[in-house]
Amino acid sequence: MDRMDILKLIKGSVESLNKEASVNFPYIQHYDKPLPSPIKIAEIIKLLRSIVFPGYFGDTHVRCDTLDYYTGVCLERLFDLLADEIHNGLCFDGHVDGCDMDKSLSNTLAAKFIEAIPEIKYLLSTDVKAIFDGDPAAKSYGEVIICYPSIRALLNHRIAHTLFKLGVPIIPRVISEMAHSETGIDIHPGARIGEYFAIDHGTGVVIGKTSIIGNHVKIYQGVTLGAKSFATDEEGALIDIPRHPILEDNVIIYSNTSVLGRITIGANSIIGGNVWLTQSVPPNSRILQQPSTQEKTICDRI
Amino acid sequence: MDRMDILKLIKGSVESLNKEASVNFPYIQHYDKPLPSPIKIAEIIKLLRSIVFPGYFGDTHVRCDTLDYYTGVCLERLFDLLADEIHNGLCFDGHVDGCDMDKSLSNTLAAKFIEAIPEIKYLLSTDVKAIFDGDPAAKSYGEVIICYPSIRALLNHRIAHTLFKLGVPIIPRVISEMAHSETGIDIHPGARIGEYFAIDHGTGVVIGKTSIIGNHVKIYQGVTLGAKSFATDEEGALIDIPRHPILEDNVIIYSNTSVLGRITIGANSIIGGNVWLTQSVPPNSRILQQPSTQEKTICDRI
Amino acid sequence: MDRMDILKLIKGSVESLNKEASVNFPYIQHYDKPLPSPIKIAEIIKLLRSIVFPGYFGDTHVRCDTLDYYTGVCLERLFDLLADEIHNGLCFDGHVDGCDMDKSLSNTLAAKFIEAIPEIKYLLSTDVKAIFDGDPAAKSYGEVIICYPSIRALLNHRIAHTLFKLGVPIIPRVISEMAHSETGIDIHPGARIGEYFAIDHGTGVVIGKTSIIGNHVKIYQGVTLGAKSFATDEEGALIDIPRHPILEDNVIIYSNTSVLGRITIGANSIIGGNVWLTQSVPPNSRILQQPSTQEKTICDRI
Amino acid sequence: MDRMDILKLIKGSVESLNKEASVNFPYIQHYDKPLPSPIKIAEIIKLLRSIVFPGYFGDTHVRCDTLDYYTGVCLERLFDLLADEIHNGLCFDGHVDGCDMDKSLSNTLAAKFIEAIPEIKYLLSTDVKAIFDGDPAAKSYGEVIICYPSIRALLNHRIAHTLFKLGVPIIPRVISEMAHSETGIDIHPGARIGEYFAIDHGTGVVIGKTSIIGNHVKIYQGVTLGAKSFATDEEGALIDIPRHPILEDNVIIYSNTSVLGRITIGANSIIGGNVWLTQSVPPNSRILQQPSTQEKTICDRI
Amino acid sequence: MDRMDILKLIKGSVESLNKEASVNFPYIQHYDKPLPSPIKIAEIIKLLRSIVFPGYFGDTHVRCDTLDYYTGVCLERLFDLLADEIHNGLCFDGHVDGCDMDKSLSNTLAAKFIEAIPEIKYLLSTDVKAIFDGDPAAKSYGEVIICYPSIRALLNHRIAHTLFKLGVPIIPRVISEMAHSETGIDIHPGARIGEYFAIDHGTGVVIGKTSIIGNHVKIYQGVTLGAKSFATDEEGALIDIPRHPILEDNVIIYSNTSVLGRITIGANSIIGGNVWLTQSVPPNSRILQQPSTQEKTICDRI
Amino acid sequence: MDRMDILKLIKGSVESLNKEASVNFPYIQHYDKPLPSPIKIAEIIKLLRSIVFPGYFGDTHVRCDTLDYYTGVCLERLFDLLADEIHNGLCFDGHVDGCDMDKSLSNTLAAKFIEAIPEIKYLLSTDVKAIFDGDPAAKSYGEVIICYPSIRALLNHRIAHTLFKLGVPIIPRVISEMAHSETGIDIHPGARIGEYFAIDHGTGVVIGKTSIIGNHVKIYQGVTLGAKSFATDEEGALIDIPRHPILEDNVIIYSNTSVLGRITIGANSIIGGNVWLTQSVPPNSRILQQPSTQEKTICDRI
Repeated sequence: MDRMDILKLIKGSVESLNKEASVNFPYIQHYDKPLPSPIKIAEIIKLLRSIVFPGYFGDTHVRCDTLDYYTGVCLERLFDLLADEIHNGLCFDGHVDGCDMDKSLSNTLAAKFIEAIPEIKYLLSTDVKAIFDGDPAAKSYGEVIICYPSIRALLNHRIAHTLFKLGVPIIPRVISEMAHSETGIDIHPGARIGEYFAIDHGTGVVIGKTSIIGNHVKIYQGVTLGAKSFATDEEGALIDIPRHPILEDNVIIYSNTSVLGRITIGANSIIGGNVWLTQSVPPNSRILQQPSTQEKTICDRI
Repeated sequence: MDRMDILKLIKGSVESLNKEASVNFPYIQHYDKPLPSPIKIAEIIKLLRSIVFPGYFGDTHVRCDTLDYYTGVCLERLFDLLADEIHNGLCFDGHVDGCDMDKSLSNTLAAKFIEAIPEIKYLLSTDVKAIFDGDPAAKSYGEVIICYPSIRALLNHRIAHTLFKLGVPIIPRVISEMAHSETGIDIHPGARIGEYFAIDHGTGVVIGKTSIIGNHVKIYQGVTLGAKSFATDEEGALIDIPRHPILEDNVIIYSNTSVLGRITIGANSIIGGNVWLTQSVPPNSRILQQPSTQEKTICDRI
Repeated sequence: MDRMDILKLIKGSVESLNKEASVNFPYIQHYDKPLPSPIKIAEIIKLLRSIVFPGYFGDTHVRCDTLDYYTGVCLERLFDLLADEIHNGLCFDGHVDGCDMDKSLSNTLAAKFIEAIPEIKYLLSTDVKAIFDGDPAAKSYGEVIICYPSIRALLNHRIAHTLFKLGVPIIPRVISEMAHSETGIDIHPGARIGEYFAIDHGTGVVIGKTSIIGNHVKIYQGVTLGAKSFATDEEGALIDIPRHPILEDNVIIYSNTSVLGRITIGANSIIGGNVWLTQSVPPNSRILQQPSTQEKTICDRI
Repeated sequence: MDRMDILKLIKGSVESLNKEASVNFPYIQHYDKPLPSPIKIAEIIKLLRSIVFPGYFGDTHVRCDTLDYYTGVCLERLFDLLADEIHNGLCFDGHVDGCDMDKSLSNTLAAKFIEAIPEIKYLLSTDVKAIFDGDPAAKSYGEVIICYPSIRALLNHRIAHTLFKLGVPIIPRVISEMAHSETGIDIHPGARIGEYFAIDHGTGVVIGKTSIIGNHVKIYQGVTLGAKSFATDEEGALIDIPRHPILEDNVIIYSNTSVLGRITIGANSIIGGNVWLTQSVPPNSRILQQPSTQEKTICDRI
Repeated sequence: MDRMDILKLIKGSVESLNKEASVNFPYIQHYDKPLPSPIKIAEIIKLLRSIVFPGYFGDTHVRCDTLDYYTGVCLERLFDLLADEIHNGLCFDGHVDGCDMDKSLSNTLAAKFIEAIPEIKYLLSTDVKAIFDGDPAAKSYGEVIICYPSIRALLNHRIAHTLFKLGVPIIPRVISEMAHSETGIDIHPGARIGEYFAIDHGTGVVIGKTSIIGNHVKIYQGVTLGAKSFATDEEGALIDIPRHPILEDNVIIYSNTSVLGRITIGANSIIGGNVWLTQSVPPNSRILQQPSTQEKTICDRI
Repeated sequence: MDRMDILKLIKGSVESLNKEASVNFPYIQHYDKPLPSPIKIAEIIKLLRSIVFPGYFGDTHVRCDTLDYYTGVCLERLFDLLADEIHNGLCFDGHVDGCDMDKSLSNTLAAKFIEAIPEIKYLLSTDVKAIFDGDPAAKSYGEVIICYPSIRALLNHRIAHTLFKLGVPIIPRVISEMAHSETGIDIHPGARIGEYFAIDHGTGVVIGKTSIIGNHVKIYQGVTLGAKSFATDEEGALIDIPRHPILEDNVIIYSNTSVLGRITIGANSIIGGNVWLTQSVPPNSRILQQPSTQEKTICDRI
């Protein structure tokens, strides 16, 4: 196989990959407009970590004395990045004709987001408290902020949810998937989550788009708040209606349990681990898995 | 403790770590040949993302007009990187005496891989369709490509499986572990997966080496297709025979269920969540977990 | 919305985020001392990978001939980085008045850690052996070192546990969370783990702080060794007492099982998958989930 | 000096640097629009090096087979970068109201530049020949391209001059200063330079804005083609008229000579080194410095 | 030559390079304390460019509205970096016993430098004006700031001179050599330079340590203000006394002229190019090189 | 101008640049083999700076205690990089058929270079001494090593000259041009330079290929040791014979002087600045420029 063969091969591949793409690969259409940039969105998240938890992220420390300067610089940079990415997101979603319109809408949305940051910070402050209170291994609020992946997942979620409510397309999903990849916690930006929310360990947690979670709720690793079935319209297409659980205040759900469908877990209920739950339960319920079977005989392998 | 003590300490550590390594740490032998490079393999994956999903990955947008140029450059770079890494992989596996042989075998294997890219793209195109059709939250094929971790995991798998079939050592496993780390989805390169395969959420999914999956199959987070037991040869060493499940067409398996052993899930079957299944089921089966127990009394803590 | 409005907005945000922080966000206090740096800690882990598994990590290969030079350089760099980070960690924990004290304590702790590296290497050597012996898909010890995420998680754990025993604050938790993010395996630095420990696949594994694991133990993905309840002191605060399981030698636990509370799994026991276990079992036990229910009727959806 | 003093100092400096800037530093007005980016312009030059001298720059080699792909990608990237930077340049120069106008002018100018690249390549091809023919130390055309700083300076000049003729503001000067910093050769973008131009060594060469240089001219290090005096308008402001020398074909000027004013050096003339020349000379002239004085006595130091 | 030979070679080289260093290479003693870091010093210069010329350097633009935030962040970062580097510099110079003393002296010096920045900015503002007024090719003050290498050289010099006056060791020289490498302009930090100083083109300019330059002086490329001879003490060692020229106000010196020794060029004097001047001249002087010789005959080569 | 026009333009440019290249641009032939890499060569220089001047370059400090480890690692890395680059250089020069031959020649040459490093270090040690003794502004040998560009230029030269003598093609020239770009000092790798060589300031210095410089020689900025004329063979091609000056021991040449042709400057001679010298001078000579003319009249401008 000499170099000429390789060239011929490459030319053939270019041909078959691009020329007949619309016929052969109908669900992968070439996209030729600017996309929201994962690198820029990652920078947005990094800036918000610095703004919300000053001094805890990044490799330099910022002193109280000059914190205002630092926050001001971060906020301006944040505004500019966010307005650009929102513009690209609107363009991706087809909201902007030809992606060439002015940026007044994206500027307005970015400004509304900036206004919401104190509310985001307040909610995260309650989450820090809830995690600290629920884990005897935690030594200080600061350790919770630095070490607990649930704080990173909730920071991303509370940002993504705010953008979701503002109607910003695609970007909230990118933000939630960044947290998913980093922490194994998959929260759809649409999920509504109250104050003092705690996730412990977190890997494998899934919280669906129409979930509603009250205050002071705690869940463990592997918990799914999912859909049980999908409604379809007359032509068989899936429709996007409420289909995920409602968790009232003070609910606790232990590890690897699945709660599915538009059911309600009443306040103060505790759901044990490894449970598959598809019906509503009243307040103050206790739900456990059936006891396991113990084999009495000894064998080499299961 | 002054600097001289530290020096003495370091000298002692060098001694005990290296000098007596073969005696003290028999399972960690120093490896002194070039290894397949994770950095280069990551670049290979990045190039293939650009080639298969033009315009969706990377931070620049590529226009239809000049897509051929762009694809050509990516393919040539891909060929060179891949041939080098395959060479290192063959060397790692002991196929190449002294790692100094010519590169004709690795060139040939890289060329065969290039020829297979359109097939990989076709399969991924069907996966995009399957995921979109299965999630009412998805707005467009483009959103699926950008946001869904299962697409990243399947891109890596379909690449790794192609290299696996070509007999390339070690590199397919590195590629599948890259997806595992990024998405929490762990698919062994040996697994055979049909068209229109959908994984939702995905964290915790494990698909073993000898699994066979039909067309139009869908699985959820935490599903394991594993081995139930391991066969051994006469001397007690494990042997690598078919030991993972076969899923026929149109099977759905819900979250956190484990399907173990060389069993067959018949076509059109649905397996509920949190199930532990070790026996074959006929087509059109419905399998659910036992109902949970509900405690009636209120207590402070489980 | 012109630029002046944006400025006004930013100024207002700086005000509300910083000025009233202690009132509005009581659990997020601005931290203005140097923090342990995640970037430096990542470099520490990278150096230790090179030292413990020479030739398997990094993009250059190191020859046996000159391995001593290479190890010596790595150890010295490691000592300096580690002493600095330990100092920052002590400062974070309030052990050091004003963070301005001399570094003799952190130097001493770093030196003790260096002394412990051969022991860490020995334990990892046994883990490599255990994983290789337990997976018929593994071709060589080298493949285990390069490809298996459990090796990365155990490297981090055995480092973190050593620092934990030396009383180094915060840094062990940062190290364990790094492995958690990369592998989905969450092992608290306090957990005591014996020789020849194998984790297969690993995503979703959680091992709590006071767990004790014997020799030759193997667990699969999604296994939790957790607490069943939390003890509180007289004022209702959680207290940090032994609350996680003890696994004796030769125990195997299959995927997605939760073992909770200060219970003992007797030697040579096998626990099946998807089990929720909260009581001790004697040696040589076999525990399985209840058999699943099979619906007989065909329906479109669960 | 404690931290509060430092804060006070910083606040005072911010005040004195920014608040009273227009009074205290009248010639440094804060510029708050996007500037042409040196980093982007450096990338433009790098792309043009690849396009004009394929295979000689960059760290990867490009094969003849696939050169078209590579050139196409480079040209598209070049077009996009250049159009953006031209837009910023027009904005800097005040050509664009508020920097918010559409980019049709900058697109047109970028396109005209692309059309001129073959001419630029032709001229550089003659420069390579001229340098090779004039230096017995040069072994091949390739060595000239890789090693001779004059090629880098002339590449930048021929690019900058083309943009200068198109009326692009500021960017040509940035490009020429990049070459100046890298090579010590300072050629104003306005200078008109013929074919087969050779500069040897080059450090200290200065070629003024209105210089005109014929074909087959060669100059050495330290040669200045400068202005002798500057004309002023009625109000004393300098005016930008022809004020630098004209060098006819086949002129050679040796090291460290200054040729000043709108004078003409006739064809085939040779000007020796270290000469200060302010008057025209006819064709075929030979100009040398006065012989030096030799002191006869021996002394310790001059 | 196999690998063992190479190892032997390397071991031998280590031996001969290090073991006998003090004997064989007496003027290169191994330095084992922290050095001032060129990378950190480059960052210091970059911060000062941003502070002094806001909006003209760096790749982001900063708006007037938020300039105070930006300047505050830059100044704090500058203070911290500078205090560290000054500490290293003092340590290099032997001012600090064992380099372990507290940092009060370096903090004080860094604070004094911060106080001097407005004065530095004022002087550079006059330099911008002088260069603009002296070059008909310059279109705006902004172009001068962005494109003229003399502004970069003077920024570095005015910083270095301020540190030099504060008695900071080594760092001023590093700063001046950075400008030398970038611009070819070599100004010793000790040189005293008045307001409205202009250097045109600049490559090859050398300004010695004890030079004194008045206001409104202009020099061209290749001008040397050097020493004519060096005084020695009784033991023959050079002594560091005033030995470079004094240029009074409004002096102009044209290209490649050398002015040597502790002589005075009187106010308003003009010195032509390529002159070698070692004696004082009175105010209002005009100095030119001897006219050149013109050969009448034609020959092929000089 | 819409996107289709731009595409057409790019396609046309690709055509005219590549298709007809051999006709239109005869002196720029596409080069499609691996080139010596400037990035790798820069790393080689950086390694050699660390080896020769331990502790003075790089951002980490290396302690005496562990210097051997550090030097060993640097030497091995150096050997590997150098052997690769020499191979590419031989290939560029046509010494290696098809660039596919084994690397035994390049390994041998790299090994010979390693053997020569102590000699290089010795010579640089004498250069440090010479520069220190000649500049009253220098405070210590360390300052000379860190701050003086001539040390960087001489390090590169003494490396390049060693490779030149070994017959390594192209790479020595790349190394000398790196120093030229950084320092403005242009020394051809062929030049033979004795011990204790000092260059002060250095910008604009040119030392030709066949120059021979004795011991204890000192030159200043802008000095050229060049050719006066070029010999040609019967067909008019330049031939590469000795054509640059010989400087005997203890010669000093002041700034901006040109010494041209195969002439000899006798031992202990001093040549003043701005001189143009084309004839040999005996030992102990003193050569000065003619005195300048002083105009008596006052005028506004020259």
